[in-house]
Amino acid sequence: MHAYRSHTCAQLRASDVGQTVRLSGWIHRKRDHGGLLFIDLRDHYGLTQCVLEPSNPHFAKLEKLRVESVVTITGEVVKRDADVINPNLPTGEVELRVAELAVQSEAEELPMPVFGEPDWSEEVRLKYRFLDLRRETLHANIMSRVAIIRAMRDKMAAAGFFEFATPILTASSPEGARDFLVPSRIHPGQFYALPQAPQQYKQLLMVSGFDRYFQIAPCFRDEDPRADRLPGEFYQLDVEMSFVEEEDVFTTMEPVIREVFAEFAEGKAVTDVFPRIPYDEAMAKYGTDKPDLRNPIEMQAVTDHFAGSGFKVFAGMIEKNPKVEIWAIPAPTGGSRAFCDRMNAWAQKEGQPGLGYIFFREGEGAGPVAKNIGEERTAAIRDQLGLGDGDAVFFVAGVPSDFAAFAGKARDRVGNELDLVKQDQFALAWIVDFPMYEWDEEEKKIDFSHNPFSMPKGGLKALEAAEAEGNAALLALKAQQYDLVCNGFEIASGSIRNHVPETMIKAFGITGLGPDVVKERFGALYRAFQYGAPPHGGMAAGVDRIVMLLVGAKNLREVSLFPMNQQAADLLMNAPAPADARQLRDLSLRCVVVDEKKTD
Amino acid sequence: MHAYRSHTCAQLRASDVGQTVRLSGWIHRKRDHGGLLFIDLRDHYGLTQCVLEPSNPHFAKLEKLRVESVVTITGEVVKRDADVINPNLPTGEVELRVAELAVQSEAEELPMPVFGEPDWSEEVRLKYRFLDLRRETLHANIMSRVAIIRAMRDKMAAAGFFEFATPILTASSPEGARDFLVPSRIHPGQFYALPQAPQQYKQLLMVSGFDRYFQIAPCFRDEDPRADRLPGEFYQLDVEMSFVEEEDVFTTMEPVIREVFAEFAEGKAVTDVFPRIPYDEAMAKYGTDKPDLRNPIEMQAVTDHFAGSGFKVFAGMIEKNPKVEIWAIPAPTGGSRAFCDRMNAWAQKEGQPGLGYIFFREGEGAGPVAKNIGEERTAAIRDQLGLGDGDAVFFVAGVPSDFAAFAGKARDRVGNELDLVKQDQFALAWIVDFPMYEWDEEEKKIDFSHNPFSMPKGGLKALEAAEAEGNAALLALKAQQYDLVCNGFEIASGSIRNHVPETMIKAFGITGLGPDVVKERFGALYRAFQYGAPPHGGMAAGVDRIVMLLVGAKNLREVSLFPMNQQAADLLMNAPAPADARQLRDLSLRCVVVDEKKTD
Repeated sequence: MHAYRSHTCAQLRASDVGQTVRLSGWIHRKRDHGGLLFIDLRDHYGLTQCVLEPSNPHFAKLEKLRVESVVTITGEVVKRDADVINPNLPTGEVELRVAELAVQSEAEELPMPVFGEPDWSEEVRLKYRFLDLRRETLHANIMSRVAIIRAMRDKMAAAGFFEFATPILTASSPEGARDFLVPSRIHPGQFYALPQAPQQYKQLLMVSGFDRYFQIAPCFRDEDPRADRLPGEFYQLDVEMSFVEEEDVFTTMEPVIREVFAEFAEGKAVTDVFPRIPYDEAMAKYGTDKPDLRNPIEMQAVTDHFAGSGFKVFAGMIEKNPKVEIWAIPAPTGGSRAFCDRMNAWAQKEGQPGLGYIFFREGEGAGPVAKNIGEERTAAIRDQLGLGDGDAVFFVAGVPSDFAAFAGKARDRVGNELDLVKQDQFALAWIVDFPMYEWDEEEKKIDFSHNPFSMPKGGLKALEAAEAEGNAALLALKAQQYDLVCNGFEIASGSIRNHVPETMIKAFGITGLGPDVVKERFGALYRAFQYGAPPHGGMAAGVDRIVMLLVGAKNLREVSLFPMNQQAADLLMNAPAPADARQLRDLSLRCVVVDEKKTD
Repeated sequence: MHAYRSHTCAQLRASDVGQTVRLSGWIHRKRDHGGLLFIDLRDHYGLTQCVLEPSNPHFAKLEKLRVESVVTITGEVVKRDADVINPNLPTGEVELRVAELAVQSEAEELPMPVFGEPDWSEEVRLKYRFLDLRRETLHANIMSRVAIIRAMRDKMAAAGFFEFATPILTASSPEGARDFLVPSRIHPGQFYALPQAPQQYKQLLMVSGFDRYFQIAPCFRDEDPRADRLPGEFYQLDVEMSFVEEEDVFTTMEPVIREVFAEFAEGKAVTDVFPRIPYDEAMAKYGTDKPDLRNPIEMQAVTDHFAGSGFKVFAGMIEKNPKVEIWAIPAPTGGSRAFCDRMNAWAQKEGQPGLGYIFFREGEGAGPVAKNIGEERTAAIRDQLGLGDGDAVFFVAGVPSDFAAFAGKARDRVGNELDLVKQDQFALAWIVDFPMYEWDEEEKKIDFSHNPFSMPKGGLKALEAAEAEGNAALLALKAQQYDLVCNGFEIASGSIRNHVPETMIKAFGITGLGPDVVKERFGALYRAFQYGAPPHGGMAAGVDRIVMLLVGAKNLREVSLFPMNQQAADLLMNAPAPADARQLRDLSLRCVVVDEKKTD
C-alpha cells in the first residue's frame, strides 16, 4: 500500500465498505461522543470521518494531538448506521476505523482557528496565510480563481489566440501610474521597471506579425493603498488582435467573457447579448460610465418642465446658464414622504444642498417641488417617466458634468433602497464611443481621456478638422475606445490602436507633447510603426475583479493567494525588508531615509 | 466584406477560384516577371501570391512600396497555370488578381531584411526585434514555444494539477543566486525581491492543503552574463505534490515530460522508460551528472590492470594513493593512431598532460601504453571493455573527483568525433540519489550539495548517525534529490522536501547554520512546518532549455520573445535606463556610481 494514501479524503463510498484503506490529511475536527473518538480527516479533496474506541492503542495519541496536525490513518471502511449518515458529505455513508496511525506533522497551538472559519484579525490571517488558506471559503475561492483562469485560457485558445509571456524586467513607461523600479547591478545608476501592463509589448507582437495574442499577465503599479486595488501586483486577461475593427473585438471577446461568467455564475443570470451603450448615453442615463444595469432605473432630462416654472431655484439656474440641465431619477415604489426625506437627508450627507423630489399618491404629485411647479408640469413629468401612484422621482440640477457622478450615486442608492436591483444577475454591457480627449482643469489643457494609444474615430482627418475648430470640437471627438462593465464595475477596457505614426504625432501634439516626446517615451512602438504595422486592437480584462464578482467576495484579498496588506507589506514572507550593505553596494545605491518631521 | 480580410494568407485553395476575396498582410517579396508584378503577401498564417499587370491602376504604387509594408488587397482568386503551381505552399495552386489596394502602413527602408533571413548583427536584431520576429525561423520557434508551454499546461491539468500564480514582489531569498531587488516607496529603505524560484511559496501551498501545484513560473536571477543563461528572467515548469515519495514524482512527471517531448520531437525518438541512474553510477560511467545518453560510451574502472604494471606513471600513482583510479573510455571504431593522437592533442589543449591510449589492430593492442603493460594486460582490458580490432580506448588517471569532469568531456569528444552519438534522439533519464552534502573547499566546511530543502534519505536518524560518524559519512549521505537530464543537459531538478522542523534544524546545523539562522532566513516555511505540514515533494523543469532542445536552437535568444542582450540590456525598449530625480526621491534612494578606476 502507498506510504501515505490509497484514497483521498473525498473518495470513500458505501461500495468501499470492508476494504482496508489508507488516508492522509489534517485533523479538521475531533469529537468525543458516546465514549468514541471521532476525527474528521481533511485533505484538499474532502473530509472523511475516522473513528476509534478507547481501547484502540492509538486513542491516547490521537486524543492528545491538536487539530491541524497531519496524520496517516490506515483501517477498514465501515458503513455508518442509518441515523448517522451525513447526506451533505460525499463520504457521509461510511467511516474509517483506525487501525494504524502515523503522525506526519504535529501542530503547535494555532494562532487562528481553521474549522468553522470565525472572523479573525486580518494581520494574523496574512501572517499565517498557510492556515488561512486551509479555511473552507478562502480555499474554495482560490480554487475558483484557478478554474476561472484556466477557463479563460482554454476559451482564448479555442478562439484562435496564443499565449505569449512578455518581459517582466522592462523599461519604465512614462504614462499612467507609478512604476516599480529594479536597480541594475551591471549598469550602475540605471533601472529596469516592472510593467504596469504589457501594452507596448502586445502592440509590438502585432507589428511582429503574431496576429492574435493573449496573456494572463501580471501587472505592477506602485500606487498608494486603495480599498479596491491590491497593492503591488494584479492580473489581467490581456488581448490583442491584428486586422480588426471594434466589431471584431466585440464579437470575439463577448462569447469568451459570457461563457466564463456562465460557467462560474452558479445559477445567476448572465447577459445574453451585451448591449452597447455609447459613453454619452451611459452618462445621461446612469450618471457613470460603469453603470450597474441590474438596476432598472434610467435617468432622463426634464429641463423643459422646469424652465420658467414656479420652482424658482431650478428655473433661475436654467435661465442663467444654457448648459444647466435638470435630470430626473425615477423611483418606482418609492412614493412615500418618509423615503423621499431619507434620500434627501442622504444627499445632504453627501455634501449636496438636498435632493428635490415629487412623490405620487391618489392621482397627484406631492411635496414642495410639485407644489411649486403646479399640477400640469407635475403630470407631464410623471407621464414622461411613466410613473404612477406609489412612485417618486428625484431631481438633480446643474451642469451635467458637475453633477453626473452624484446623480449616478443617487440612482444606485434609490435602486438598492427600493430593492429594485436584481441580485441574482451578472449584467454585462459594452460602453463605447469614449471621448478621445478631456479637459485637464489642473493643467488647463486638453489631455487624453483614457488611453493615448487609441485611434480617434475618423483618424488623422478627424483630428485635424477638430483641431482647426477648437477645444469644443476636440472634446467632442470620440475614440475607438470601449469598456466592458458588469454590475457597476469596469471589468475590461480596450481600443483599436493608433498604428499610424503621423496620426500618433498629431494625437499627442494636441495634448501639447511634441514628436520628440513621443519618440522618447514610446520609442520602440514609434520605431516599429515605421516598418509596416497592421491595424490592430484589443482589450484587457481585470482577472482579480472578475473572480471577485463571480465568487461573491467583498475584498480582493479574499480571492488572492498571498496578498500584501494595505501598507503593501507581505506579513508572511516579511517583505519589504532592509537590504544588506553588500547588496546596496552591488547596486551602487544608498538609502537616504530622511526624517519626515524635518522635511514636512 | 470585412474591412481587412475575408481570408488569411494561408487559406485560399483551388476550390476558391472565381471568388472575390480580401487579404491583408506584409509584402514579403516582390518580383517582376514577364512584365507582371508578383507580390508574396504574408501574414501569421501563411503566404499568398498576388499578381497584377502594368495596366493595373495600382501597379505604380505597389511597385514603389517597400517590402514589409502592410497592405490590404481585394481581388479575384484565379488558378495558376500547371507549370507555376507551387506544391510547397498550401496556397500554391492559386493566386490573387489585384483589383483594389489599401495601404495600411508604408515601411521605411529596413535596418535588416526579413525575407531569406540572412545572418545579421545581434545588436540590430535585438533593437528591431519586431522585424526579427517576422523572420520565418524565429517566428516558428516562438510559436513552438507557445505550443510547448500550452501542452505542458494541458498535460499538468490532465494529471490533476492546478496552476497557481505565486507573488512576484516578494522577499529576498538568502540562498542561491543574487536577487533582483525592488525598492519600496511606502517603506523607505526597504526592498522587495523578485523570486529566484517560487520554492518557498510552492511548499507553503502544500502546507495550505492545495495538494497538487504547478506553474509556468517566471524566475529572476541577477547573475553575471553566461552563454547558457538568459540574463534576468527565465521560465520554469514548477511542480509540487503532497503525500508523495520519489516514486510518485517520477511516475507522475515522466509521462508529462515524455508526451511533451514526443509531441514536439518532429520524428526524433524519445526515451520510452526513463532510466534511473544513481548519481555515483552516472559519475563513474559518464563523468558527469548530466550525461548525454545518446552517446553509447560507458566508462569503466580498469585500475587493477594497471596496478603493478609496466606503465610506471599509472602504477606509481596507484601505489602512492589508494584513492587513485584509472578509468577507461572505450572508443569503438576509433582504432587508428591518427585519431588517438588527435585526442591526445585535444587533451593537452584542455590543460591535461595528455591522454593515454591503446588502439587495437590485427588482433593486438598498439601504442606506448600497450607496449608498457604487455600483451596479457592489454588483452584483459580489451576483453573487459568488449573491444576489438579497429577500436581504441583512452585512459584517465587520478582521484576520480579531480578528473571526472575531464573524463566526461573526453567521453563526449570521442562520441562526437567518431559519430557514435545518435543525433535523432531525445535521451532522457532520471539521475537519483544525489549526495546530501558536499565539501566546500573554499570555506573548509560541509555544505548542501544541491537544495537545502531536500529530505535526507533516512531522515533525522540518518543525519544524526552520519554526524556522529564524521565527515566521510556525511558526504556519503544521500538526499531524496533527483534531476532529469536530456542529451547532456539538466532539464529538471527536484526533491522530496524536508518538512520536519527538527530535521530541518539538524540538516542546516551540519552546515554550520544554527536554528536562529534557519528561522530568520526561512521564517515563513519554518513557521508553517509547526502547524501541520504534509510530506511533499516536486520538481522544476527549465522551460527555455526544453524549448531550445525541441526546436534545435543553438541559443536561448532564438527561443525567447524579447530577450535582453548578454549585458542584460533590452535594446528594443531601452532598459535599463536612468531614473529621474523625482523617482529616486520617492524611493528614498541615491545612486552612488563610483569611478571604477579609483576603487580598483
